[in-house]
Amino acid sequence: MPLLAIGSVAFDHITTPYGQQNGILGGSATYFSVTASYFAPVRIVAVVGEDFGQNEMRIFEGRAIDTSGLERVPGRTFRWRGEYSGDMSQARTLETQLNVFETFAPKIPPAFLDSQFLFLGNIAPALQLHVRRQLPGVRLVACDTMNFWIKGWPDDLRKTLEVVDVLVINESEARMLSGTENLRRTADSILKMGPSTLIIKRGEHGACLFQNGSIFFSPAYPLEQVHDPTGAGDTFAGGFMGYLAKVGDFSETHLRRALVYGSVMASFSVEEFGLSRLLRVTHAEVEERFQEFKKMTHFDV
Amino acid sequence: MPLLAIGSVAFDHITTPYGQQNGILGGSATYFSVTASYFAPVRIVAVVGEDFGQNEMRIFEGRAIDTSGLERVPGRTFRWRGEYSGDMSQARTLETQLNVFETFAPKIPPAFLDSQFLFLGNIAPALQLHVRRQLPGVRLVACDTMNFWIKGWPDDLRKTLEVVDVLVINESEARMLSGTENLRRTADSILKMGPSTLIIKRGEHGACLFQNGSIFFSPAYPLEQVHDPTGAGDTFAGGFMGYLAKVGDFSETHLRRALVYGSVMASFSVEEFGLSRLLRVTHAEVEERFQEFKKMTHFDV
Repeated sequence: MPLLAIGSVAFDHITTPYGQQNGILGGSATYFSVTASYFAPVRIVAVVGEDFGQNEMRIFEGRAIDTSGLERVPGRTFRWRGEYSGDMSQARTLETQLNVFETFAPKIPPAFLDSQFLFLGNIAPALQLHVRRQLPGVRLVACDTMNFWIKGWPDDLRKTLEVVDVLVINESEARMLSGTENLRRTADSILKMGPSTLIIKRGEHGACLFQNGSIFFSPAYPLEQVHDPTGAGDTFAGGFMGYLAKVGDFSETHLRRALVYGSVMASFSVEEFGLSRLLRVTHAEVEERFQEFKKMTHFDV
Repeated sequence: MPLLAIGSVAFDHITTPYGQQNGILGGSATYFSVTASYFAPVRIVAVVGEDFGQNEMRIFEGRAIDTSGLERVPGRTFRWRGEYSGDMSQARTLETQLNVFETFAPKIPPAFLDSQFLFLGNIAPALQLHVRRQLPGVRLVACDTMNFWIKGWPDDLRKTLEVVDVLVINESEARMLSGTENLRRTADSILKMGPSTLIIKRGEHGACLFQNGSIFFSPAYPLEQVHDPTGAGDTFAGGFMGYLAKVGDFSETHLRRALVYGSVMASFSVEEFGLSRLLRVTHAEVEERFQEFKKMTHFDV
C-alpha cells in the first residue's frame, strides 16, 4: 500500500572514530525512503537545492521511490556537519546550514493524496500537522520528533500528536516529552496525548513498543563495529512503516514484526557510512538477520 | 542440587526518593540466598558480628537455607550506607564499615564440600579462588565482581576467572574488565579469560547471555516504580543459579530460562525496600511474571 514520507534531504559531513565523509546524501526522508522501499512503494515529499544533482537523484530513482514530490528550488540543499566519539551514542552537531530547508512548505502532489500510510519525519510540528490534515483518509500515521520541538514548540507538537497513530521517539526525548524518568509512566503519559502506539528507541539497548497495556521489547543487534550511527532512527522508522505498508495490516502481531524489521534495517545502516550499506543490503540478508533476532530473544516457557 | 553461596551479610542504611530505611538486612550472600532458596536448597557461607540477632537469623532459618556456614565472630556486622537519586541507576555510597567482614576468611563446613553449584559473591578475588579450590568437584561455578577488584586486584581476578564457568557482571564493569566499549567485543574478550558463559547485567535495559557464539537478550521488567535497587544484582544471580540448581541442567535452553528467572526475581526485589518484597513473593507470582517476560519478547516469524 502506498506510503508517503515527508522530511529532510541533506548533505551530511560526518566524522566518526572510523573516518570522515563529506557531502554524502542524508536526511530523514532519505534514510526513511531508501529503507522503506525494500518493503513497499514510497512517495517522498522533501525539498532540495540546485546542488542536488543526477547522482543523488539516481539513488532514489533506482528504487521503488516516487520522486515527484521532491521539490527543487533555488539555493543550496540542507547541510549538516556532525561528529561521533566515545560510545557514539550521540552526535555532536558542529554545523547546521538549513538553506532551502528553512522555508520548506511541503507540497503534496495530488496523486499522493490517496496514500494509505504516512510518515511525518522530524520537521516542525506545525508542518507535520499541515501535511496530516491533507490526508484525512490515511490509515496509519507515524511521526518522529526531537528535543528541539519538544522544548520550543510544545503546543504545536501536542496538536500534531492528537492526530497521529504511532509516535517513534528516542528514550531521552520521550522522558522530556512526558516529564517523567520511569519508562512505563513515560509511555502511559504519551499514550494519553493521542498516539495509540508508542515506540521508544533506546539506541544500543534496542526499542520497545507500547500499546494499550501491552509492551514488546526488542534488543539492538550487537554489532562488532558501529561505523556511523547517522540516520539509524529514520532507517528504523523506514523498516517499521515499510513492513506495515507491505502487509497492509497493523495488528499487534504485525506491529511487533515491524519493530524487529526496523531494528534489522537500522543494524545494517550503521555498519557503514551514510547510505552505503543500506543501498546494497539484500532481501536474503534482511531475512537472515530477522531470524537472528528471533534466536537472540527466544526462550522456552 | 545443593547450591553453595559465599558473600557478604550486612546491615544496610538506604535512602531513595521513596524513603529511608536504617539497619535492614542486606549483603550479597543474603539477597542471593533468600532468592535462590525459592528454587533449591542453599548453603550460605558468610560472617556476621554480635549484633546479628535472632530476628535476622529467622529470615534465613524460615527458608531452605542451611546456615551452618554463617560464622558469628566478635565485633559488628558489615554496614553500608547508600543513597539513590535521579534515575536510581547507581547508588552513592555514603559510608562503608567493613567491621567483621574486613578479616573474613571463608570456612567451608565439611558437609558443604559436596555442593554441586557454587556462587562466589562479590568479595576479594583471592578469597573467591580460595573457596573455588576447595570444591574441585563442583559442576557449575558462577562469580560476581566489581570495579574495585577489577582496578585494584587485576591479577587475582584473572586467576579466579580461569576457574569459573559463569561470570555475572554489570555492563560498565564488563567494559572496564575488557578495556573495550563495544558489547560484542567486550563479551569475546571476557570469554577468553576463562568463563564459558558471560552474563552482562544492564540495569533497566535487562541482561544478556553470551556463550560460544550464541547471544540471548532479556529486557528488564518495566516497573512503574523502583523503590530500592539495592541487591538487585545478587537477587538476579540468585534466581539464575537457583533455577539451574533446581533443574540440574545447564544446557542453553535452561541457561536462557535461568536468565529470565533472574530478571523476574530482580524485578520483585526492587519493588520495595531491602528484602521486603522478596520475602513474601509467591511461586504463583514468580511464574506469572515469567510468563509476562515471554509475552513482552515474543514475536512470530
